[in-house]
Order: sequence, then structure tokens, then C-alpha cells
Amino acid sequence: MKRPISRKEFLTSSTKTVVAASAGALAASVLPAMGGQSLKAGLPTTAASTWPWPYATLDREDVRKRAHKAYYEGGCCYGAFHALISALADTHGDPYTRVPTQMMYYGEGGAVGWGTLCGALNGAGAAIALVTDRTNARLIVGELFGWYTENPFPSTLSNDYAAAHVFPLNKYDKPLQQTVSGSPLCHVSVSNWCTGSGFNATSPERAERCARLTSDVAAHAVDMLNDFFAGRFRASFVTPDSVTGCMGCHTAVHPGNVQPSVKMDCQQCHKENFQHLY
Amino acid sequence: MKRPISRKEFLTSSTKTVVAASAGALAASVLPAMGGQSLKAGLPTTAASTWPWPYATLDREDVRKRAHKAYYEGGCCYGAFHALISALADTHGDPYTRVPTQMMYYGEGGAVGWGTLCGALNGAGAAIALVTDRTNARLIVGELFGWYTENPFPSTLSNDYAAAHVFPLNKYDKPLQQTVSGSPLCHVSVSNWCTGSGFNATSPERAERCARLTSDVAAHAVDMLNDFFAGRFRASFVTPDSVTGCMGCHTAVHPGNVQPSVKMDCQQCHKENFQHLY
Repeated sequence: MKRPISRKEFLTSSTKTVVAASAGALAASVLPAMGGQSLKAGLPTTAASTWPWPYATLDREDVRKRAHKAYYEGGCCYGAFHALISALADTHGDPYTRVPTQMMYYGEGGAVGWGTLCGALNGAGAAIALVTDRTNARLIVGELFGWYTENPFPSTLSNDYAAAHVFPLNKYDKPLQQTVSGSPLCHVSVSNWCTGSGFNATSPERAERCARLTSDVAAHAVDMLNDFFAGRFRASFVTPDSVTGCMGCHTAVHPGNVQPSVKMDCQQCHKENFQHLY
Repeated sequence: MKRPISRKEFLTSSTKTVVAASAGALAASVLPAMGGQSLKAGLPTTAASTWPWPYATLDREDVRKRAHKAYYEGGCCYGAFHALISALADTHGDPYTRVPTQMMYYGEGGAVGWGTLCGALNGAGAAIALVTDRTNARLIVGELFGWYTENPFPSTLSNDYAAAHVFPLNKYDKPLQQTVSGSPLCHVSVSNWCTGSGFNATSPERAERCARLTSDVAAHAVDMLNDFFAGRFRASFVTPDSVTGCMGCHTAVHPGNVQPSVKMDCQQCHKENFQHLY
């Protein structure tokens, strides 16, 4: 019972109001209109005016495979970003063909190798932020970060994919040690895994671990986006007690030295300060 | 003595070879060809095929003002990214109008408020990576990170701009305490400044500090890009002794638990481990 959407309706509906309510149904009708609108006009669409870009359901396992391959082509940040954007581009074309996904190369190794934000999170974050408004991107990307800190990587499924040679690039097919980072930081995530697995950070096994992790992050981003646009997304991450316990004083009694929104586990870096608790 | 560039020459020259040699002169001739090519064809250019996007000299102080304003409109990451991309879009139009700069909202506060990578660095990094190939983006963005860790923010110039009401948005005109973060992490950068200045992380003074810092980062990115495309960029950041000293053992004797490329100051998080050095 879908009727064609007019240009005026599209321009109105492709803003954040699309995201807020009955997003799944709207996305399905908006997407063909988006393609038709730009092709019929014969002029480049001003992307900024139509942001957030339209979205329709993606295939999680397709994106997982794309991300694993793209990791080896351009690193973790490119891997996650390219997997999501190329999947949307292959299905819907414009406007997704307009973004050179290579722009996220720089995010590799926690951003140009500095070990800060995990590139898979950074790349997935940028892709999520292309299709959701500011408020919802913050909600979904924040949930992705929380999930990342609490889950073991690589996932059992990605280990199984490698063992069964399901990934397009078959670099290493043995199962890899699973570790929980407790942090969205590349340095912590990689170092914890190296300590747990015994592999060097420069080893091909570590690279394969990050390829599988990138595929896990991109796949989870698909799950969340599919849920969000179907109206069934629920954020479940709860800031750990170790953080909320610190913030109880450090934003009130000692207000000057901590950001209240920080959710990284305090003890990972501030072990020496925990003596005053005991 | 410039001659018109053909479509074939453009498609060839707009790759990394443009960046590698005599980039300044080429950029000046490539940019008009880029606009003409897409408008004459009447079809959306496939952005991915022409990456890196063409660049020509930007006005550092114009970008500094844009970034300060954009910070208040969309946070630090959007602020730096939007300043650079909107300056290129205003001068050259397509392809820069194709990127919805709102896609970088998510990077605010160290990425959705988690305090990881400083959003100004993340946004500037994405913009740099749109106009330079992977190798050079890594070089330039890495230098930006290094510069950030060693310089006091906000800069004296940004403090002076605020005092003289030069910024388009005049939120707070007093000079702000200058602190050196020693880290590209938002949490460290903000917390050090809050400790040094005595202002709370939720205060308007802290927001203004980050607005000025965002303007400083975007302006420095312009300096580096202008230098790079004029063939005079030289990386000068040297990894601190505190890091190289640790890495001497931690990538050789204890290879399993540290990424060799990490340049963040080890002592900021690993104070308790430094007892074995003394």
C-alpha cells in the first residue's frame, strides 16, 4: 500500500523526523525516491541538505565479510566504514557513491597508529552518523562503544568464519584467543589481547585478530541500525560501577578535574589513585 | 602559462601523484578542471574514483574563525571538520558540497563523550585524509597529533581573538589558562586544563577553551596542508624519550603486550609500572 513519495515529501521526511518515528517503513519508501530524485534532476544533490542519508535494512553477515576484507585493504577504521558505506552504495548507489571511503584510512591503529580510539569504532561511528541525526548517533554509537568494552573479541562467529574459510580473504584459519578490552582505546584493546594470546602486536595473528574484530564491530553496527530503523533499538549499556563510583565525587566534591560524561574504566589508568578507596 | 587539463589528465593527476610532487602548482590547475568536469558532464562524479580530492591554499585565519563558530554549532570534531570542508566548499564547490559535515558530530567529547581521541584531532584528521593519500595523511595527521601533545591550549592568538571579539561568536572574552595535555586524548586534555584553570568540565569557560582549541587545531591543519601542497612540509615531532625508553624493552624483551607504533606518553597511565626503572 505504499504510494510514491514526492520530492517535497522526501526533502521533509529525510531529516531527523524520519529517524524519530516509524523509521523502518519510511526508510523503505524513501530510498527509491532518493535515487530517482538525484538521477532525474541530473544535478548533484547537495548532500548536506539531505542529511541524514536514507537507510534500509542491511545484511549483517554480508557486512561482516566486507569488513574483514576491507581491513586488509585499508585498516580497521576504513574496514568498518567501507563495509557499511559500500554495502549501502551497492544497494542504493547515490548518495553513498559520493563519499570516498578512503577518507577513513587515517583512523587505523587508534588513529595514525597512536593507539587512541579503536579505528573500527571510529569508522563505524562515522557511518552511523551519516544515517542518523546527532542525538540518535550519540545514542547508537555510545551503545556500540559500551558493547565493545564488555564483549570478547574476536567473536566465536568470526573465529568460526575463519575456520570455515567463509571470509573472502583467508589469511589465518585457526581460532584466536578471545579477550575483553574494558576500553574503547586501541592500545588497551590490542595490548590486552597480546598479553592474553601471547602474540606480538606486529604479528600476522594480531592483524587477523583486528580484522575479525573489525568485522564484529561492523556487523554489530548493522544489527543496531537495523533495529533502530525498525523501531526496536534499545540501549542496554550501563556505565560500570567503577566509573560511577568515581564520578560521584569527581564531578561534585572535586569538580575541576574530570569530564562527567567519560565512561572509560577509571582503574585502567588510575591504579595509583585507588588507594584512597581502601 | 597554464593550459586546460583534459578529463583523462585530471583523472590521472588527482591521485596521490598530485600530492607527491609539485603539488602546489598542480592543485591550482586541477581545481577549476574538477568543477568544469562534473558540471559539464551533468552526472554525479564518482567521488571514490577521484580521491584524494583536489586542494588549493586555504586562509588559516578564516578557518580558525569558522572552527570556533562551528564548535558551538556541532562540537569539536564537527567544528574542525566543518571549518576545513566548508572553506573548501565555499571556494571550490563540488566535490566538497557532497559531504554532509554533520557526519562528524559523533566525534565530540572524545567520541560521543567517551573522552577518547580529541574530536578536533579526529575531525581535522578526516579532512586531511580527504585531500591526501594514505601515506601522506598518516604523516600529516601524525604530526598534528604530536604538535597537539606538546603545545599549550588555547593559543595566545585565540585568546587574543576572543579578547578583541574577532570570533564570529563572542561567548567569553577573557584570556583562558593555557595547559599542555601531553596526550591526544580528550579526557587527559580536558582534565589537565580543568585542573590547571580551576574551572569545572561542565562550565562555559571549559566549552570556550575547547572552542578555541578547535580553532587552533583547524588553523594548524591549514598551515600543514598549505605547506604540504607547496612542497615545504617537514614533520618535526619526535616521540618523547619516555615512550622510546619504554618501547626499547616492550617491543623486544616483552614483545607480547605493547603496540610498537603507540606514541602516547606511557607514564600518564602507567605510573605504577615505573618503579622498576628507579
